[in-house]
Amino acid sequence: MASADAPLRSKLSLNTATVREQWNLEQMIEACARQGISRISPWRDKLDELGADKTASLLRTHDISVSGLCRGGMFPAVDQAARDAAIADNRKAIDDAATLGADCLVLVVGGLPSGSRDLVGARQMVLDGISAVLDHARSAGVPLAIEPLHPMYCADRCCVNTLDQALDMCDQLGHGVGIAADVYHFWWDPNYLTALKRAGKSRLLAFHLCDWLVPTKDLLVDRGMMGDGIIDLRTIRQEIEACGYTGAHEVEILSSRWWAVDPEMVLTTVIERHQAVC
Amino acid sequence: MASADAPLRSKLSLNTATVREQWNLEQMIEACARQGISRISPWRDKLDELGADKTASLLRTHDISVSGLCRGGMFPAVDQAARDAAIADNRKAIDDAATLGADCLVLVVGGLPSGSRDLVGARQMVLDGISAVLDHARSAGVPLAIEPLHPMYCADRCCVNTLDQALDMCDQLGHGVGIAADVYHFWWDPNYLTALKRAGKSRLLAFHLCDWLVPTKDLLVDRGMMGDGIIDLRTIRQEIEACGYTGAHEVEILSSRWWAVDPEMVLTTVIERHQAVC
Repeated sequence: MASADAPLRSKLSLNTATVREQWNLEQMIEACARQGISRISPWRDKLDELGADKTASLLRTHDISVSGLCRGGMFPAVDQAARDAAIADNRKAIDDAATLGADCLVLVVGGLPSGSRDLVGARQMVLDGISAVLDHARSAGVPLAIEPLHPMYCADRCCVNTLDQALDMCDQLGHGVGIAADVYHFWWDPNYLTALKRAGKSRLLAFHLCDWLVPTKDLLVDRGMMGDGIIDLRTIRQEIEACGYTGAHEVEILSSRWWAVDPEMVLTTVIERHQAVC
Repeated sequence: MASADAPLRSKLSLNTATVREQWNLEQMIEACARQGISRISPWRDKLDELGADKTASLLRTHDISVSGLCRGGMFPAVDQAARDAAIADNRKAIDDAATLGADCLVLVVGGLPSGSRDLVGARQMVLDGISAVLDHARSAGVPLAIEPLHPMYCADRCCVNTLDQALDMCDQLGHGVGIAADVYHFWWDPNYLTALKRAGKSRLLAFHLCDWLVPTKDLLVDRGMMGDGIIDLRTIRQEIEACGYTGAHEVEILSSRWWAVDPEMVLTTVIERHQAVC
């Protein structure tokens, strides 16, 4: 690694989804330490296996910081009891994010409740849900990062699908809420740059990297390693930083192909590609 | 069919993609006549098999009108020769649309040229391409309908992905260009209703129907029969008509599942579902 690349390298964060099929969280943390990756973003299933306190301790040992906790959200549900359960789960996630000192809690807000075609209603449930946990998040010092997901996930995962839509919600909710900008979800958006500028430094809470493959063979688990697809990653990375973002470059690759590769090699490739094309 | 439903039924159009694996165009036209479907939208592969003149004659015999010809577009390409070929092909499509008396020529504008990551450049090629054929379309009396495709097709099929983006292009191009609004492509868009209003009667040239299945198992050929998915079709149909649209309700279902069904049954189902949920 050329010394000129050190600042870039220091931004790299491993989202645990990238090697979720190969390693548990302890193995991931140790691998990051071995390979000189100084940031991580755990998913909660992995975190729950290891426990938040033990994870925090292990991260301190290895001087690894947490770029985000994935994920809260999933607010829309068919009845009030289920919506209350989601709110309780989000409070727990906020507490865990605080324990880890995470830069933010990423919110994948949820899609349509089962059997529903009421998209306007689902979006209102998202606003109501975030409102219900926002004071708790503010008290805990955990910024909430609404992650707009690609429109192909609108029905079943996330009914917030553009950066501007997320920012409209931020405007309604007030301080303590921003956005997680994932290139996979917004690269196609003709308004993305305007939206990144609109967000500004204070609301750009996370930046996620992978690539869009051509062809894409699966809606969920065919995301690409940076450089293997068609997203102009370096341009977008420079744009978001010109808009004031100073946080991590978090690599999150949901890919049945990469889940079948030796995870040490996955991390090596992540590091190389981050330097080469991001 | 209740007489109250007759106006709705008269709007129904069969996009030939819906039964493309089972029938040729002559069979489709005869089936529409049998089942009382008075409008059709041929794809050009089927049209080329039968020929535009013979098709026009057959349609007159059965008193079936053409809600649109699918499709022109595919403008971005790696070199000028390929872009010129696309323009020539679009002129041919305009001529065929005129021969058929089609309500419009639908444009699926194309994605990134092979090997390119320059989305801004691709979108400029689209504008340039439409500009190059627009006078020909105006002379022929064929409105050009830009069809924004779902963002999941941005890379490989269509880099125009929202109604507003298409309308921005219409604004730049002037008269003779409007949009084809397909529910599958825009149902998720938080701004779709504002955009339909912005389009208005003069630029709402086509309205396509199918449904979004949960889960969706394939990006291209897992579209749903109306009523089998989660799109609030009746609301959207009423909204677009409240915005001034008076044209066909064109059913276009790309579905490996429905392509394996007896096509006569597909048409029966299309008619029933159009009445029941659209």
